[in-house]
Amino acid sequence: METTYRSIFKWGDKREEKPEKGIIALVKEQFGYTDADFDKKVLYGDREVRLEQKSKIPAAIRQRFENITGSENVRSDDYSRASHAFGKFYGDLLYLRKGEIATPPDLVITPRTEKEIEQILTLCQQENIAITPVGGLSSVTRGVETPNGGISLDLTKYLSKILKVNTDNSTVRVQPGVYGPPLEKYLNDRGYTCGHFPQSFEYSTVGGWVAARGAGQASTGYGKIEDLVLALRVITPAGIIETKDFPATAEAWDLNKIFIGSEGTLGVITSVTLKIRKYRPENRAFASFLFKDFASATHAMRQIMQAGTSFSHLFRLSDPVETATAFKIKGFDNSLSDRFLKMKGYRPGERCLMFVSIEGDKDYTHLLKKKIKKIARQSGGFYSGEKPVKEWLKQRYESAYLRDPLMDIGIMTDTVETSVSWDNLLILWTNVRNYLESREKVHVMAHISHVYENGANLYFTFLSPMKQGDEIADYLDYHRELIDAIHANGGSLSHHHGIGRVLAPWMEKEMGKTAMGLLQATKDYLDPKGIMNPGNTLGLR
Amino acid sequence: METTYRSIFKWGDKREEKPEKGIIALVKEQFGYTDADFDKKVLYGDREVRLEQKSKIPAAIRQRFENITGSENVRSDDYSRASHAFGKFYGDLLYLRKGEIATPPDLVITPRTEKEIEQILTLCQQENIAITPVGGLSSVTRGVETPNGGISLDLTKYLSKILKVNTDNSTVRVQPGVYGPPLEKYLNDRGYTCGHFPQSFEYSTVGGWVAARGAGQASTGYGKIEDLVLALRVITPAGIIETKDFPATAEAWDLNKIFIGSEGTLGVITSVTLKIRKYRPENRAFASFLFKDFASATHAMRQIMQAGTSFSHLFRLSDPVETATAFKIKGFDNSLSDRFLKMKGYRPGERCLMFVSIEGDKDYTHLLKKKIKKIARQSGGFYSGEKPVKEWLKQRYESAYLRDPLMDIGIMTDTVETSVSWDNLLILWTNVRNYLESREKVHVMAHISHVYENGANLYFTFLSPMKQGDEIADYLDYHRELIDAIHANGGSLSHHHGIGRVLAPWMEKEMGKTAMGLLQATKDYLDPKGIMNPGNTLGLR
Repeated sequence: METTYRSIFKWGDKREEKPEKGIIALVKEQFGYTDADFDKKVLYGDREVRLEQKSKIPAAIRQRFENITGSENVRSDDYSRASHAFGKFYGDLLYLRKGEIATPPDLVITPRTEKEIEQILTLCQQENIAITPVGGLSSVTRGVETPNGGISLDLTKYLSKILKVNTDNSTVRVQPGVYGPPLEKYLNDRGYTCGHFPQSFEYSTVGGWVAARGAGQASTGYGKIEDLVLALRVITPAGIIETKDFPATAEAWDLNKIFIGSEGTLGVITSVTLKIRKYRPENRAFASFLFKDFASATHAMRQIMQAGTSFSHLFRLSDPVETATAFKIKGFDNSLSDRFLKMKGYRPGERCLMFVSIEGDKDYTHLLKKKIKKIARQSGGFYSGEKPVKEWLKQRYESAYLRDPLMDIGIMTDTVETSVSWDNLLILWTNVRNYLESREKVHVMAHISHVYENGANLYFTFLSPMKQGDEIADYLDYHRELIDAIHANGGSLSHHHGIGRVLAPWMEKEMGKTAMGLLQATKDYLDPKGIMNPGNTLGLR
Repeated sequence: METTYRSIFKWGDKREEKPEKGIIALVKEQFGYTDADFDKKVLYGDREVRLEQKSKIPAAIRQRFENITGSENVRSDDYSRASHAFGKFYGDLLYLRKGEIATPPDLVITPRTEKEIEQILTLCQQENIAITPVGGLSSVTRGVETPNGGISLDLTKYLSKILKVNTDNSTVRVQPGVYGPPLEKYLNDRGYTCGHFPQSFEYSTVGGWVAARGAGQASTGYGKIEDLVLALRVITPAGIIETKDFPATAEAWDLNKIFIGSEGTLGVITSVTLKIRKYRPENRAFASFLFKDFASATHAMRQIMQAGTSFSHLFRLSDPVETATAFKIKGFDNSLSDRFLKMKGYRPGERCLMFVSIEGDKDYTHLLKKKIKKIARQSGGFYSGEKPVKEWLKQRYESAYLRDPLMDIGIMTDTVETSVSWDNLLILWTNVRNYLESREKVHVMAHISHVYENGANLYFTFLSPMKQGDEIADYLDYHRELIDAIHANGGSLSHHHGIGRVLAPWMEKEMGKTAMGLLQATKDYLDPKGIMNPGNTLGLR
């Protein structure tokens, strides 16, 4: 087994990838890179992992953990601890590339049963040991770190079972540690789909989706994770809370909604009952459009969402730079089609690409497509067929793999996302874009990928050469003002990545003092000793 | 102004009504009533209101309230206090008919502004005075009583403004005290609808809808109130919490969802931002069906909800007795159509009536109707045209007016509702029905009126002669075992009426100890002195 820092921070299946031709051209053009620059191995991280501090848990206590789970499920070797020290926040990757791991967990424990989790929590309470439940460790908000050391409770090894598909109720009950692909395959094989496809799908778990309040690429139709969860079972230091799979209730307020977004600060989620839907790929309807500019495209999007026809499942819109970048990478520029489109007034640097994919009953998907086409055309949309969407879907999880090779050549790559009401959307897009572009050499792309009747998300991707030798501070400065700009322009701190520790400093300003007090009071009741994912997650003590 | 007990308990606009012919026939047939029985005036409540206890608030403190709101907005006359002592729970009506008001509020205050509410809360905290915010006082769960006396804070007089319609965002921001009809009219005049039509629509307020976590008749398409609320502003004893109108977020857990269903125990809701939808009555599609039995009808309902075609807005199904009752009242029995239907195997006492009404884009509503027809037919549904639904919609709020004239002739009339997953629905329906019918003389009807992919509600209506002289205890015994039966058969304590004090005794059994502790901890933080709607609401201290 490879035990380098690189093997930890590489996304996904650890395959080594070089940027494709289009990306290389873009980097050369935008940042003045020469061929030689592409041989760089910036902060390559190919050293063997070695931690300076040893596990701080005394042997006698470790023995008690081992008595619970068996010794093979309690690990304290350097690699296990290092590989559970970080998620996938850009800053995390820099620390790993530098080989700097300040606060790894003391132990990585893989519990085999819910009962064991209860016993572990009891022991952690008695001994005041921090504990952070983790799934795929794909958090981009520093949600899975262990600033106080303690236990990283890895649920992916044993708590990854699919417990029950109920076709009457159209639900599936699963354990938290199951990854996206096995769950989706299991459901597809039985004629169902989960409908939840986050960018991290391949390497994230149901528990993580719930804890971080995530959204999938088809959330416009299927809803965010909070719309998919019917029931939860959560082991908290104060006891077990289990909700029921009622389709809806008026039994006081909704306790599911307290654990969705709790980011491991309140307890360990041990089972999740999710809505499922019939899987009928043969009925899907696809459409893509080109618009003359972002304003007319977002106008169409809003009209479509408010048309009284229900919603497309996948619904995306790239802004002009993201559109131009995609066209460049795909070699579309100056093709015959491109020249035709330019002639028609769909100009590079202004035009925007929209993707639609609708699922469900066949007549329904086709009607909805027809309706969307009509509204799109009223806003000047040019129908560009099904193929671009189908092509995009084939590589829907690929962009996550691009970050590593770009960082290898010294390019900062990050994404930040927000949600915003329709009336603020263009203002926020303009101002946040302007801020991001105020950096000397930078390539900024944005898209909308989760759309609502009342607004949408905005997802910014930016590439820029790292400031060599000062990579982390340079990034954090840039990032801090970015979040300030989003906040100042009426955007939420997050639409689906969560808060973690990265956005925690903005929480009180965003929520208000009384609301933060309420979050803290909730935590204080469920976790009186503050052992659950402690250290400023969500801005909590 | 009429100041009798009767004027308080009568539903709605206080018009006097006699049961219609069909109801009279039913009562004769079922309960052996003779013509003379219809002249009864059982517990008629036409005495003038007179309270035994005077307001317990000392004059000096009362003066301080008057300093805040002006003396005209602080009332302690018997009628004001009596009319704010109860909601519309069946037991409440009995107490009012008997002229027994054990714990009226000491003062009824109608604050003029949010600022005044803040000041009132501060004073109540200082002086340890209970305070219960109220809207239309239509609670059927003893949610608005004042067991500790104190203040009934009536928000309907001044805090009833529509603050802003935002057509970009498709939202309306309103104050809590606005009633259904003025809100809906305001929106309709601007081309929008709120889509929330509870049975109590005419006499309930937005604040009450939110506080009690209600649902409207079109909730299958538009969602329950928790699906319609985007943002709230709440004045709590601990401070103000204001959420933003983001279309969705991942900013920790969802604080809106804590106030939706809080039933006045956490604070005073002072503004609500709701989703609105385009109002296009001309596009509506209607359908009604007759099924051979409840099992095939609920099967069709489930298939329709899981068909991948989005949802009908109004979607109702009456069980065999409710269907037979409606047919009898409408004089349908033994008509030509009836004889035809019987011949086709749709037999009285077995057959079930289903109503569908779909809103939105015209092609969409018509396609959905077509799809529903197809699925209904596959389950043996007989399409009975648009008219029955249209007729039903014309008198959609009428059944609430029926309770008073029936009680006048000594007939107990109540409704109890629950939600249940599909796999438990028929079992619950059968067993709860059997329990209700175990009473000597009783007429039990049930329907489904809020439908989901994962289950539905069940709404039971029962009529039975009162036990004269022992009306209240007799009812409470019957009701207690009814809730036990619902709970034992996997139903929720409520789908949309809320918990109040009526269902509070079941809460710990239903939610579990740790969950109840979490509810209480939330209250203890926001309302440390326990002044907000105290006395066992939701089972809280």
